[in-house]
Amino acid sequence: MSHNSFGHLFRITTFGESHGLALGCVIDGCPPGLEITETEIQSFLDKRKPGTSRFTTQRREPDQVKILSGVFEDDRTQGQVTTGTPIALMIENVDQRSKDYSQIRDKFRPGHADFTYLEKYGVRDYRGGGRSSARETAARVAAGAIARKVIPMVEVRAALVQMGPHRIDRERWDWDQVDKNPFFCPDAQAAGEWEAYLDGIRKAGSSCGAVIEVVASGVPAGWGAPVYGKLDQDLASGLMSINAVKGVEIGNGFEAAAITGEENADEIRMKGNKPEFLSNNAGGVLGGISSGQDVVCRFAVKPTSSILTPRKTVTTAGEETDIVTKGRHDPCVGIRAVPVGEAMMAIVLADHYLRHRGQNG
Amino acid sequence: MSHNSFGHLFRITTFGESHGLALGCVIDGCPPGLEITETEIQSFLDKRKPGTSRFTTQRREPDQVKILSGVFEDDRTQGQVTTGTPIALMIENVDQRSKDYSQIRDKFRPGHADFTYLEKYGVRDYRGGGRSSARETAARVAAGAIARKVIPMVEVRAALVQMGPHRIDRERWDWDQVDKNPFFCPDAQAAGEWEAYLDGIRKAGSSCGAVIEVVASGVPAGWGAPVYGKLDQDLASGLMSINAVKGVEIGNGFEAAAITGEENADEIRMKGNKPEFLSNNAGGVLGGISSGQDVVCRFAVKPTSSILTPRKTVTTAGEETDIVTKGRHDPCVGIRAVPVGEAMMAIVLADHYLRHRGQNG
Amino acid sequence: MSHNSFGHLFRITTFGESHGLALGCVIDGCPPGLEITETEIQSFLDKRKPGTSRFTTQRREPDQVKILSGVFEDDRTQGQVTTGTPIALMIENVDQRSKDYSQIRDKFRPGHADFTYLEKYGVRDYRGGGRSSARETAARVAAGAIARKVIPMVEVRAALVQMGPHRIDRERWDWDQVDKNPFFCPDAQAAGEWEAYLDGIRKAGSSCGAVIEVVASGVPAGWGAPVYGKLDQDLASGLMSINAVKGVEIGNGFEAAAITGEENADEIRMKGNKPEFLSNNAGGVLGGISSGQDVVCRFAVKPTSSILTPRKTVTTAGEETDIVTKGRHDPCVGIRAVPVGEAMMAIVLADHYLRHRGQNG
Amino acid sequence: MSHNSFGHLFRITTFGESHGLALGCVIDGCPPGLEITETEIQSFLDKRKPGTSRFTTQRREPDQVKILSGVFEDDRTQGQVTTGTPIALMIENVDQRSKDYSQIRDKFRPGHADFTYLEKYGVRDYRGGGRSSARETAARVAAGAIARKVIPMVEVRAALVQMGPHRIDRERWDWDQVDKNPFFCPDAQAAGEWEAYLDGIRKAGSSCGAVIEVVASGVPAGWGAPVYGKLDQDLASGLMSINAVKGVEIGNGFEAAAITGEENADEIRMKGNKPEFLSNNAGGVLGGISSGQDVVCRFAVKPTSSILTPRKTVTTAGEETDIVTKGRHDPCVGIRAVPVGEAMMAIVLADHYLRHRGQNG
Repeated sequence: MSHNSFGHLFRITTFGESHGLALGCVIDGCPPGLEITETEIQSFLDKRKPGTSRFTTQRREPDQVKILSGVFEDDRTQGQVTTGTPIALMIENVDQRSKDYSQIRDKFRPGHADFTYLEKYGVRDYRGGGRSSARETAARVAAGAIARKVIPMVEVRAALVQMGPHRIDRERWDWDQVDKNPFFCPDAQAAGEWEAYLDGIRKAGSSCGAVIEVVASGVPAGWGAPVYGKLDQDLASGLMSINAVKGVEIGNGFEAAAITGEENADEIRMKGNKPEFLSNNAGGVLGGISSGQDVVCRFAVKPTSSILTPRKTVTTAGEETDIVTKGRHDPCVGIRAVPVGEAMMAIVLADHYLRHRGQNG
Repeated sequence: MSHNSFGHLFRITTFGESHGLALGCVIDGCPPGLEITETEIQSFLDKRKPGTSRFTTQRREPDQVKILSGVFEDDRTQGQVTTGTPIALMIENVDQRSKDYSQIRDKFRPGHADFTYLEKYGVRDYRGGGRSSARETAARVAAGAIARKVIPMVEVRAALVQMGPHRIDRERWDWDQVDKNPFFCPDAQAAGEWEAYLDGIRKAGSSCGAVIEVVASGVPAGWGAPVYGKLDQDLASGLMSINAVKGVEIGNGFEAAAITGEENADEIRMKGNKPEFLSNNAGGVLGGISSGQDVVCRFAVKPTSSILTPRKTVTTAGEETDIVTKGRHDPCVGIRAVPVGEAMMAIVLADHYLRHRGQNG
Repeated sequence: MSHNSFGHLFRITTFGESHGLALGCVIDGCPPGLEITETEIQSFLDKRKPGTSRFTTQRREPDQVKILSGVFEDDRTQGQVTTGTPIALMIENVDQRSKDYSQIRDKFRPGHADFTYLEKYGVRDYRGGGRSSARETAARVAAGAIARKVIPMVEVRAALVQMGPHRIDRERWDWDQVDKNPFFCPDAQAAGEWEAYLDGIRKAGSSCGAVIEVVASGVPAGWGAPVYGKLDQDLASGLMSINAVKGVEIGNGFEAAAITGEENADEIRMKGNKPEFLSNNAGGVLGGISSGQDVVCRFAVKPTSSILTPRKTVTTAGEETDIVTKGRHDPCVGIRAVPVGEAMMAIVLADHYLRHRGQNG
Repeated sequence: MSHNSFGHLFRITTFGESHGLALGCVIDGCPPGLEITETEIQSFLDKRKPGTSRFTTQRREPDQVKILSGVFEDDRTQGQVTTGTPIALMIENVDQRSKDYSQIRDKFRPGHADFTYLEKYGVRDYRGGGRSSARETAARVAAGAIARKVIPMVEVRAALVQMGPHRIDRERWDWDQVDKNPFFCPDAQAAGEWEAYLDGIRKAGSSCGAVIEVVASGVPAGWGAPVYGKLDQDLASGLMSINAVKGVEIGNGFEAAAITGEENADEIRMKGNKPEFLSNNAGGVLGGISSGQDVVCRFAVKPTSSILTPRKTVTTAGEETDIVTKGRHDPCVGIRAVPVGEAMMAIVLADHYLRHRGQNG
């Protein structure tokens, strides 16, 4: 079952709410002998953590990770390694402000999970959305750092390619730019333009959506399976499980629907003694199995529902009213979704690597 | 593990290749006491089966389903019912023509799974793609017929909303049209125009992609879960697992990325004593849990790789060559993907219904 | 979920009832490239099939297996091999006699599943127990034949070591005897004595229990896991899932409870450059992980509930009555459980071999 | 996968080593709205914790549990309840003494997991066995406390029925005695005798095995499933997964092998308008499904391998030597296995309750 777990051989189980004591995850199935430190995991968490620029929520969470289990530092050898047993990671919550939510505790936020959550469970943690909070994604990023260790042959990177209606110019794509602007944008010029756009959104108390592209290089051919273990299926599952995601594409995605078989075919030639594809409409996955090309996904993040413009809603008691969500929120949650998308790609690939090795040696 | 299984409490496991003796599936976890006949299952298979118009493959497969287990007809009561034990369904292959494939048995088809399949398994059933054939989807449709029985409160329907570059006019949407044209198109005028377009594609030995929309009405609020058991996550997984699918959307999907929080919010008013949403950008899913609105998904199908125009490729021996795929193929596989999309929606919903009932009573 | 599936990477899903059209199983996750034929599978089924001596049920079932999918015979290479895709196996039922059950269709058999089955499902296939029939174990034996192919380094054997109150003399253990008597008994003298004993049981219309021992040789050290993936845990699960089994032991089993740590310790010396245990109280499993010694299990099978002596019972309508079960039944179901125990051992080991390879390379 | 998880709908995932920072578990799938406090969980942990009498290890671990997530205390209502989201429980280790292990860090303990552990993972936490330590069972006991909340209609109790070679007299069974002696023994007279016996074992630096019986009353008919979801199969799996367990029985267990069908049959009469069994050889499970009678299991625990008598062994470098294990160890680990057995029974039953409700409503 997978209410709160993801993956099979490399399997993560996350726990924790926005306003509880702590959140974290348990990573089961990690191979033994991999060198790993809290510092390395932290470096990925720091990319996702809030409050790093004026464009993300001002909640102050250091998101300091602690490894509770699954590693061993032998005093005779150097360094700490995974032991093959469950790696439990914990991140304590330190900046909860439950009172921020007192004004909306009895109102449903349009576009927010609070309505469905209460319908399902009959009990609702009104403080920050409980389990439906995006704080859960910190656990994914931490797990993703370990997943990367499992597949050292693979490099996973992501970038914001659309903010609101504004897309990057793919001709200007430069991975080196991604860490040089607060948006993880690979197009320096677009990043500059987005700054003004997002300041406008932010000052208006509004919010906007985004599209993130995730690329994995170095994935060998053969990972995945033809039917319900499709690599792209699990990528779709993993990316769609991120909060606020409404769409997922592999390769040319929805564009593939509009073109012909001739246009879509990724032709093949020999390069040395290996087949080489002349294009990558497939996004590195054919029939659910990796082809050796870059694995390329995109996912769409909706604008957060927490905005200052009054919206029509009802109370839990059934009275019609308006709602304004103050609190501390991201004007564009898509930004912090970039490292989360990377993490999910890494987790899916690590799992499929082990699955492939299990069945095929 | 899920190489060939899908779902948790309502769980299907499919088997069979394009050119083997038979294909089928085992449905585990079906509640007991549901009335089911081969005739009912057959009615759904007949919508998917090949050769029903000039726009689908001319392979002649009756796709006759046989129930091997899991039902019981008591001679004292009326009718055959499920027993709560595994329902095994079998469909025998009758029109395999392996020799169709003799010309391409040593060539990789650009855009086809044969390359990755061989990389993964080292053994390849060149006849019709083996397990990566779309014939596997017949098993899904059969399973979907039973899934519908599990959730009688829900109606699942699907329609083709885009063929190649041509979209329907949503103002003309009429569900009654879907069964009146060979494309499952809800827009009579578009269906007429597509006929000419697809004849052109077909006669040119080309192929085109499509977009399918699936809608489930009657889903109560509360199915799904906030994190890795998200209803939309499992829909994305299920739809992306269909052959040739390259993208999946929930609700307004990628459109959500381009708009603001104000525009995206589905406002709420009271209707009688129940909350009612004034729009459905969410596609019936908030925070991974159904909201009580229609659940709406779309998925993009790429054009089939089996075309008559020569494409550059290589042989399994590493020689550069061209390939032309003759055989019997669908010019637009998206058409027959319509009942498959319905089936996957039904299967995901049946599973989540049982999961919800298990945890929440 | 595992209502009707067993294993993780080597995973079987069985289907079919005693009196339906067919029974069978789908084996998912089998490595590709293994040579396998129906003849080989049949040789194991023939050991389990009914009617081979006067000591088993006289139901005439050829138990002929058919491979529906998952193998490929290339016309250019020699032989049929697994493809890495699901292997579906089907065995048709040919000698159902539903009328045998007409006299007991409304009575509960003491010690039989019919009472609990009806309580659970509300519908009951009175003919031969439906899904709770031991005919399901034919599917296990077929799957076990394939599991053996996955672990060619391992030899799995089983023997009957106790029939009713009569145990073998372990000093006389001779594996070569196992196939030379109708009981799979490794002690020729005991087998002779059992013949008279079981004839008495049979003629009295009675039944008796048995204990089976299963031994796997050649299992390398390292399979299993320390907590919920314990090798012995999965063996206990697999063996207890066989019909009529009431107890399972690993190594010295319940005897371990009665002795001291000194007596129980399997001491270690070097043999050449490898550690060697001087005894095997552990049964080849320490801390849930194989030690390289023989893996040794025993399981207890109760006497079948289908006997000619009248027993007090009630009808489905709640009336008190007596019951006598005529039909065709095994006087000692433990005999035919021997190949089933072997199969479950092979299936558990094949699964753990792949799981170990997945995590640890 | 289940390396470190157990159960399906009520699913626990445990983590932590004997000498790490903390151990704990994540409980997924717990129904919402159940009242639960740390105090209640603690009361069960206190039964298992070390150092409560001279007959258990003198390691001083308060085993203080902390609930990290999955509960919510609404300031407007009374009391803390489960929310339906993952409940993470943490127990910090406070009394690790790694130096206790310095003398044996390079030696394998006969009968201990250290040999197989190193064979599997290539890395070994020599301090207290790492993940194979019985400290992991604290997490089970904590999870069991929550499982009990899920099935309030069921009472789960356990008792020590054999210590070394000494069995209780079942005629003297009195549940009230269980908490009145340091052995959880239901026979006051036996408990008195065991005291002298175990003092002898303890003073000799020896150890002994034990048999524990677990009984669940109030389980309604219908939980479980006929094939691989057998209730007794999952009980066998759960109990065999406890450290040092070598055998598991349901009902009369191995005794069933020695008797006839007449003797074994649990006859049925009506009691009021419900069927009532006149005996319970079945142990409350027929065909894998609960019958409404008490569910009765027994499991055998081997003597701990940590003893003062020198045993022959080898070092990790392959040198022959002797070993004496000093440290702080239980002379009879079976005592503290009593609350662990109860916990596993409760966990299996809670899972099957939810599974049954999922499929059958």
